[in-house]
Amino acid sequence: MRQIAPPLERVIHELGKLPSIGRKTAQRLAFHLLKMPVDEVASLGQSILELRDQIGFCERCFNLADQPLCPICSDGGRDASLICVVEEATNLMAIERTGAYRGLYHVLGGALSPLKDVGPDELSIRELILRLQAESVQELILATNPNVEGEATAVYIARLLANNEISISRLAQGLPAGGELEYTDDLTLRRALEDRRNF
Amino acid sequence: MRQIAPPLERVIHELGKLPSIGRKTAQRLAFHLLKMPVDEVASLGQSILELRDQIGFCERCFNLADQPLCPICSDGGRDASLICVVEEATNLMAIERTGAYRGLYHVLGGALSPLKDVGPDELSIRELILRLQAESVQELILATNPNVEGEATAVYIARLLANNEISISRLAQGLPAGGELEYTDDLTLRRALEDRRNF
Repeated sequence: MRQIAPPLERVIHELGKLPSIGRKTAQRLAFHLLKMPVDEVASLGQSILELRDQIGFCERCFNLADQPLCPICSDGGRDASLICVVEEATNLMAIERTGAYRGLYHVLGGALSPLKDVGPDELSIRELILRLQAESVQELILATNPNVEGEATAVYIARLLANNEISISRLAQGLPAGGELEYTDDLTLRRALEDRRNF
Repeated sequence: MRQIAPPLERVIHELGKLPSIGRKTAQRLAFHLLKMPVDEVASLGQSILELRDQIGFCERCFNLADQPLCPICSDGGRDASLICVVEEATNLMAIERTGAYRGLYHVLGGALSPLKDVGPDELSIRELILRLQAESVQELILATNPNVEGEATAVYIARLLANNEISISRLAQGLPAGGELEYTDDLTLRRALEDRRNF
């Protein structure tokens, strides 16, 4: 027994597949779409349809791009002597949001994980090595996630480049801004202690 | 300075216009769209594009419909002697979800509100009266919202039908299921007292 008109039910169903959007939220969103100006709804639908046709990977750094090169690689104002290595494009965007980084990136496409069957060949590590040979890079910042897989990936890359001239760094680990000592996990606190800086 | 490929930025921007979806959630959703199977993304985009073209109002009860009659009005198994009057189609869907109602509906399209310039002519009240003359309705359940505007709308409709044979009822008000007396507002508690039922 259907109580909802099929085109509406279809939108609710499709929206409900997205992460963190349950049936009720999907319903609320669908009703909102019914009240929005028609051209805005068309714009949303169109943008979603075009997304997958138009987005691919930057051929230099594997960031998301709608051109052969991503916006960052094609920006002449960036410092090309610096490459920040991240697991995913989302991590790149998080770093961009800080506004504190003016170098280039290299997106690995994940982290090494024997459990998930992700080895070096599944990541863009070979392409990173080729870049380091072709470009005049002075520093490589390994900004993989501060978890087991991210650390293993950083260590793997660092070892590959051990005989290289390039300076290799890692994001600092320590207390999060606004955090409290009492609620900080032991490992974070230990690293904050080990990496303490002169005041 | 743009760091995000325009087709991706566009999806993030369009998703971010939806209620309760901020920039970060929109970004997360957009990245999820990039990882979803292409045909599912196309299906979502298409469903949104088609929504506004295909959805209109039921010519009998003003529920949302993709046919002249909505799924409920065209369902011969519903009890046509009962009409439940609601403000919006979302309220109808909430009642349908309970599974406790087998009658028909009438969607007013809002509630009377002098402040928002909504008078009887802005709602489908005239159409409701015409329905009551044309159909053999025995009971009208006024299921407008339990707030000032909803109450005013219910009172207005009840007065219009005062000289009518039709029995008119209102949704019960009282304590919410799972609620606690201590945290119940005074008005709700007062109504729960006034409408107390024999045990």
